[in-house]
Amino acid sequence: MESITRVSMNVCPFVKSSSASALRKISQNSGLANQARQCPFMGAALLAKERASGGSRNYSSASKPVNATAAPSVSSPKASSPYSFTGSALNDSQLNLGRSSNETSFDFKGYLSDELNKKRSDKSYRFFNNINRLAQEFPLAHRASEEDKVAVWCSNDYLGMGKNEKTIAEMKRVLDKYGSGAGGTRNIAGHNLQAIKLEAELAALHKHEAALVFSSCFVANDAVLSLFGQKIKDLVIFSDELNHASMIQGIKNSRAKKHIFKHNNLEDLELLLQQYPKSTPKLIAFESVYSMCGSIAPIEKICDLAEKYGALTFLDEVHAVGMYGPHGAGVAEHLNFQQHLASGIASPATETIMNRIDMITGTLGKAYGCVGGYITGKANLIDWFRSYAPGFIFTTTLPPSVMAGARQSIRHQRSTLVDRVAQQKNTRYVKNNLNNIGVPVIPNPSHIVPILVGNAADAKAASDLLLDKHNIYVQAINFPTVPIGQERLRITPTPGHGPKIANELLDAVESVFNELSLKKISDWEIEGGLCGVGENGPAVEHIWTDEQLSLTDKDLNPNVVEPVIQHVGVSSGVTAY
Amino acid sequence: MESITRVSMNVCPFVKSSSASALRKISQNSGLANQARQCPFMGAALLAKERASGGSRNYSSASKPVNATAAPSVSSPKASSPYSFTGSALNDSQLNLGRSSNETSFDFKGYLSDELNKKRSDKSYRFFNNINRLAQEFPLAHRASEEDKVAVWCSNDYLGMGKNEKTIAEMKRVLDKYGSGAGGTRNIAGHNLQAIKLEAELAALHKHEAALVFSSCFVANDAVLSLFGQKIKDLVIFSDELNHASMIQGIKNSRAKKHIFKHNNLEDLELLLQQYPKSTPKLIAFESVYSMCGSIAPIEKICDLAEKYGALTFLDEVHAVGMYGPHGAGVAEHLNFQQHLASGIASPATETIMNRIDMITGTLGKAYGCVGGYITGKANLIDWFRSYAPGFIFTTTLPPSVMAGARQSIRHQRSTLVDRVAQQKNTRYVKNNLNNIGVPVIPNPSHIVPILVGNAADAKAASDLLLDKHNIYVQAINFPTVPIGQERLRITPTPGHGPKIANELLDAVESVFNELSLKKISDWEIEGGLCGVGENGPAVEHIWTDEQLSLTDKDLNPNVVEPVIQHVGVSSGVTAY
Repeated sequence: MESITRVSMNVCPFVKSSSASALRKISQNSGLANQARQCPFMGAALLAKERASGGSRNYSSASKPVNATAAPSVSSPKASSPYSFTGSALNDSQLNLGRSSNETSFDFKGYLSDELNKKRSDKSYRFFNNINRLAQEFPLAHRASEEDKVAVWCSNDYLGMGKNEKTIAEMKRVLDKYGSGAGGTRNIAGHNLQAIKLEAELAALHKHEAALVFSSCFVANDAVLSLFGQKIKDLVIFSDELNHASMIQGIKNSRAKKHIFKHNNLEDLELLLQQYPKSTPKLIAFESVYSMCGSIAPIEKICDLAEKYGALTFLDEVHAVGMYGPHGAGVAEHLNFQQHLASGIASPATETIMNRIDMITGTLGKAYGCVGGYITGKANLIDWFRSYAPGFIFTTTLPPSVMAGARQSIRHQRSTLVDRVAQQKNTRYVKNNLNNIGVPVIPNPSHIVPILVGNAADAKAASDLLLDKHNIYVQAINFPTVPIGQERLRITPTPGHGPKIANELLDAVESVFNELSLKKISDWEIEGGLCGVGENGPAVEHIWTDEQLSLTDKDLNPNVVEPVIQHVGVSSGVTAY
Repeated sequence: MESITRVSMNVCPFVKSSSASALRKISQNSGLANQARQCPFMGAALLAKERASGGSRNYSSASKPVNATAAPSVSSPKASSPYSFTGSALNDSQLNLGRSSNETSFDFKGYLSDELNKKRSDKSYRFFNNINRLAQEFPLAHRASEEDKVAVWCSNDYLGMGKNEKTIAEMKRVLDKYGSGAGGTRNIAGHNLQAIKLEAELAALHKHEAALVFSSCFVANDAVLSLFGQKIKDLVIFSDELNHASMIQGIKNSRAKKHIFKHNNLEDLELLLQQYPKSTPKLIAFESVYSMCGSIAPIEKICDLAEKYGALTFLDEVHAVGMYGPHGAGVAEHLNFQQHLASGIASPATETIMNRIDMITGTLGKAYGCVGGYITGKANLIDWFRSYAPGFIFTTTLPPSVMAGARQSIRHQRSTLVDRVAQQKNTRYVKNNLNNIGVPVIPNPSHIVPILVGNAADAKAASDLLLDKHNIYVQAINFPTVPIGQERLRITPTPGHGPKIANELLDAVESVFNELSLKKISDWEIEGGLCGVGENGPAVEHIWTDEQLSLTDKDLNPNVVEPVIQHVGVSSGVTAY
């Protein structure tokens, strides 16, 4: 272990800047060696070391370049599999392996075992919890057995719209009328009124010209960002370091030159932007609410920088749509709350942040309780995605019932503040009371309640204990979703998580923290703090103000009328897209 | 035009090998210049030429490298937009353009207009038809007005399962019980009994150990192929030249070394495979039924090659699941029809082609009438995708109702041959009678009926005429879905498209062919043929034999019992994954 630490000191900025005691703690909890194996630099170094010593299994030997020394590949002992293969009549021809006559084939089977064992040994192997959320007993769900019920405290169905009766009724109506599936891509038999109406609704929600629906927002982000980089020569993408995996994938696949700016750091972003002349095409990709820490981007100031340096703005509002703004259009709407409250469905007369943003992506699968993703923006931009993005073009349209349900859900949330306000009040209740009992909540202005735990094993143990002993489901969030050392429990109250059920949560969390001796706020203070916990920073202001939380639906402009369906392109009498 | 043709001769193998008369024909129909602009080689050459002459708009000027000659960018006349912007209060800050003070910004707006105009001028701009398929009046759909009904002849709801009452009833039941959405990713609150049961069903269908469900099969193909190349060092991927866009994207994003082999050409594949030592990790990616021409891969022989050269096999059965084999598991099952018919749900005692395939991907959105995609294979392989593929990990689970409906649909099709047989009989009827009236059907052994038209404008005109005059919807298939010059109408009969409604189609197609003077079989014969039409090749044998079409459900082994749900991984009492 010591030698690894020494090597690390020279290679790894994380290790270099960590205290000896912190490193010891990490090593004890989950094994520095195992963690190092995950690192692209250290992993390679360790592998080389193992190869040289010949001690442990050389699983990469078969992938050596053709003309490397042809050492005979070693058949390795496999870790016993946790899978039950009973009933399978498969023979070994799958994966082309395990046959003595095939000794020189690449050992896919061994490779897979090793990859999975790495995850098991560093505790990042994921066990999915079987959680069946009951529409009639929200926020309860049953586990494998229908009698075994738990309270769900970590769903992204933030407003409980998944159980909304009007949404479900609309889905059933459309199921009966139009069947279970769309039957084709948008170009071939899969374009229909539900798609047209949903896209009109989304454009109206964001007060943008047009919208396009994708299978998911993962696909929307990936497809759109990929397209930009692949099509626009010399494009440079500027991406927040905490951006979601879908944006990271899209940016990677775009092959565009990219710069990662420090999280929500305008100075860093500007330093990067100003390296390029204004004529260089640029795109700034960021989120409004970052889902794992609850931070919120300085959207307006990013728009200022974009304008100053000639960049497009790509804003992911996945965790914000339905949740912020008088009509649930997201944080960009929320930042001009009064203007949008007064103008209702119309765009305010003065410029708003929402219409300064070039592209907004969002989901139909979280606050709106269904599934699917979308992007909104200028009509020509949306038409370009529609015409060129393979991830949109070559995939089956979402079922008409899903699109109709999502639209119903959006319309409902556009016409009421009740759920948003209740959700925020419940969030404040949970955050305040967790703080009161010393449980470390990562400070943030949004609806996310991240409880810092600080290592993978403890986070999983806490989650398991909450589930098994207290019938409360809060998933542990581990690497790679959050950095190693920042593992957490992520709590998401909904309008249905009022004080009574919240008190049960608070008692349970306190009990688990005591039982597992997890670090409380005071412990983090002694260690100098982490993620804003125990750091005595300035108090974080809620983005929903007290004044906004006192509003009722009477304060809303009631004109949430049918959005105008824009008929785009007319072909021999066929009204199209 | 002549100069372009001359330049093309030197650069373009397609032009080089085309006859002068063929080139003239192409030029007349849709403009060689416009087509050339789409070509990666010619497009660049033409752009350079335009730049030099300065005559036409230089829309790329702003993307020149920083230190290129700084010519002032020219404000260009924009083609008038077909979009209606009424009601939009957006100002010009979106897209950061159109302001005189921003002259040096990259002209995104102009770029988009040009890209869309290119599509309009080469007739590849897509107009989506508004088609609302009516569950109660299958195969009818209404257009924008509910009174305006058409017969749908091009849906990928191949078996009409989108209207299946049992599927819809199951979806409604699950909607009521579990709500409209899953509420999270599989790891965070989105894993449930519907997912577990569906994946068990899919594994049982393909007689593989495990299965994993994705948002779509586009995502499954992209995510899995990307992962292979990104994770397995030195992997080489061998891909059929007609593979679907999702596989092409996955292979590109994998960054692996790749070879494209000629369509269904074993000799070419083997030539490519044998360049590498057996120890090099390899993967062969191919489809069973190629959807735009209906051809079927030589699956068994590809397995032989894979075994010989140490390659994994990745088989996309998207257009085959539900449609082939005694239980609808696809072409791989169909190739051992008798064995699987006899063994029922169990794996046959002898080796089958289905269990020689390492990975099968399929869709829930075509023959099964819902939405979503999946992959099946060995348990460790599936667990590796589950543990490492971002496109699986970081996306919301499909709604429980969709997963339950898809499972119901699969179970139904596993237990009956009726729909598959009726679909094939209707396909034969349409193919035979189109041939009888001289309409050129691209010969193939599958359920796809591709009518060759040969250029984009005619294909669209034929589709529009069928729709507007005959109330029949058959989408025109143009570039990039098929190569330029091979544009077609793609007809997909279902069990509900019997002789009566087929006769209406036949009359309408004949009328349209006469009205538009489209080329018939005899015309293609004179020109030497194309795509197997007018080429007097050997007769194509149907993959469903006469004997198989005479089977009834009495011939099926009735044991389609509940598949064994494999509990993979147990964590502190939590049955997981």
